[in-house]
Amino acid sequence: MTGMPFTGFPIDRAGLKRRDSAWIAAQLADPGTDLILLRAGQPVLEARTAADGSQALLRLSAAALGTALPSGLDTVFLGLEADGRAVFAVALPRRFDLDDGPLAGLGEVAELRGAAAGPLRGGDLALAATARDLFDWHERHGFCARCGHASDLAEAGWKRVCPSCGAEHFPRTDPVAIMLPVRDGRCFLARNAQRFPRGFVSALAGFIEPGETVEEACAREIEEEAGLKVISSRIVANQPWPFPSQLMIGLIAEVAQGEVRLDLDELSEGYWFTPDEARALLSPQGHDFDGITWRAPPPLAIAHHLIQAWLATD
Amino acid sequence: MTGMPFTGFPIDRAGLKRRDSAWIAAQLADPGTDLILLRAGQPVLEARTAADGSQALLRLSAAALGTALPSGLDTVFLGLEADGRAVFAVALPRRFDLDDGPLAGLGEVAELRGAAAGPLRGGDLALAATARDLFDWHERHGFCARCGHASDLAEAGWKRVCPSCGAEHFPRTDPVAIMLPVRDGRCFLARNAQRFPRGFVSALAGFIEPGETVEEACAREIEEEAGLKVISSRIVANQPWPFPSQLMIGLIAEVAQGEVRLDLDELSEGYWFTPDEARALLSPQGHDFDGITWRAPPPLAIAHHLIQAWLATD
Repeated sequence: MTGMPFTGFPIDRAGLKRRDSAWIAAQLADPGTDLILLRAGQPVLEARTAADGSQALLRLSAAALGTALPSGLDTVFLGLEADGRAVFAVALPRRFDLDDGPLAGLGEVAELRGAAAGPLRGGDLALAATARDLFDWHERHGFCARCGHASDLAEAGWKRVCPSCGAEHFPRTDPVAIMLPVRDGRCFLARNAQRFPRGFVSALAGFIEPGETVEEACAREIEEEAGLKVISSRIVANQPWPFPSQLMIGLIAEVAQGEVRLDLDELSEGYWFTPDEARALLSPQGHDFDGITWRAPPPLAIAHHLIQAWLATD
Repeated sequence: MTGMPFTGFPIDRAGLKRRDSAWIAAQLADPGTDLILLRAGQPVLEARTAADGSQALLRLSAAALGTALPSGLDTVFLGLEADGRAVFAVALPRRFDLDDGPLAGLGEVAELRGAAAGPLRGGDLALAATARDLFDWHERHGFCARCGHASDLAEAGWKRVCPSCGAEHFPRTDPVAIMLPVRDGRCFLARNAQRFPRGFVSALAGFIEPGETVEEACAREIEEEAGLKVISSRIVANQPWPFPSQLMIGLIAEVAQGEVRLDLDELSEGYWFTPDEARALLSPQGHDFDGITWRAPPPLAIAHHLIQAWLATD
């Protein structure tokens, strides 16, 4: 499944270079190095919109950026372009004003989720999501979980090290099972009571726990959330999801006969949909029933692709 | 792929009960509740070996255990048996002597990895691995990564909460891609310089990073470690692996022509094997070449099943 949003990282991560602190410092000092900018996890896009509605990440050479930024900002090494140029992301201070100073007019801060559903696409979206994951992790992991001491960013942003006890900490990626229960030619979609407005339904999802396979987590979550027994399931897609750093693993799960019993703390309502109804849910027009128009997730989300994968095989 | 070691968790995790602290306390006080024991991450097995060579986890009722244990030990709720009995794991103190006191003669501490390759099987192995994951996580995460304050075990062992800043922390499970490069009817296996003795080869593996799909991580790792370009890959199996808590996602990857260039920091040597050679590597006899007998991982590890999956389809 190609072209899924947040996938298609466009450059060589060059992970083996991260430990070479002299090389990393030389790249950061190289005026030809490319820098992308995020402020509080939100990427800075070029002010200019292309004819197709897309907007690129603002990339500034270290030379162009010069002394426009305060020193000591967190930076992470994202990788190498094919021409050998290094690419880093820089975390701007929360109060940094893009409209005042040498960056004025060059770019604008965009909310990542909105940008991902609109102008920010392809490789640039993957770069922005990866940088956000890392900065978000640094932000929430400034202290050593083993001893409580303040820890230091290391390996060009891909590690933290505790100067007191020596513990090493690595960026966290949480695997999540996201699944579409199907039965008798229909698929089951539900509304998350807290997160979705009325008229919006999606696949079920939950964190994969210690000691579980993906399929075991899928079966447990479908039983916990909807009271349905899984007969068999298969992984059909996966997607990195930076809200915050998760690896979404999508399954289609054949479930047994039996009544739906929703976990009402999680889900407020759920319905079985025919293929025609599911197609309508995915369309811009939506699916009308019960007096309102219902919709399922847009192409940004793996749930959209799970439903499409089921429609393609049903 | 059923029957993979560490899979097949045998009881209902009953995750929704974890938050009900009054219910959890009542279960712990119930003399009929089952307790399993681990010491420094190693499970306590029944002293008795069954006719088939297997050994069960030692299960003691809370009543039988009585006051044999010191108070205040970490406990985690593992779930409910079909008859409604609750099952908890208890972390014994590191210096707890099983041979001295009321537990003498009842059980013995077993190194988990060895036990998993031998007497500890099926659902008991899955229970022990899950308990070890959780205790290991608590052990290494006693402090809040956000503010550095000591944190508290919560939700029956499935969460930690910071009493100072209120941050919630959840058990970590790291997704890992493990992959078998294949080309022209041969598969590629390599020896990890640090971890494997000479004569032992396995699949390649690496952590899935923020911003990557499983397939992207597979392609990156194969290129980093062996210099080979991946043409296509498919997920064929997955397995929880408690050394420490990882989710191993196994792929078979078709790679392009081109010379192997090993990352010598990771791998000391690597070879292409025919199906007959791969079968020999998996067998107790091993595969003789270069003057010694070579072997690949035993059925304990997903790498064994990846090679078998390739042999079954090649």
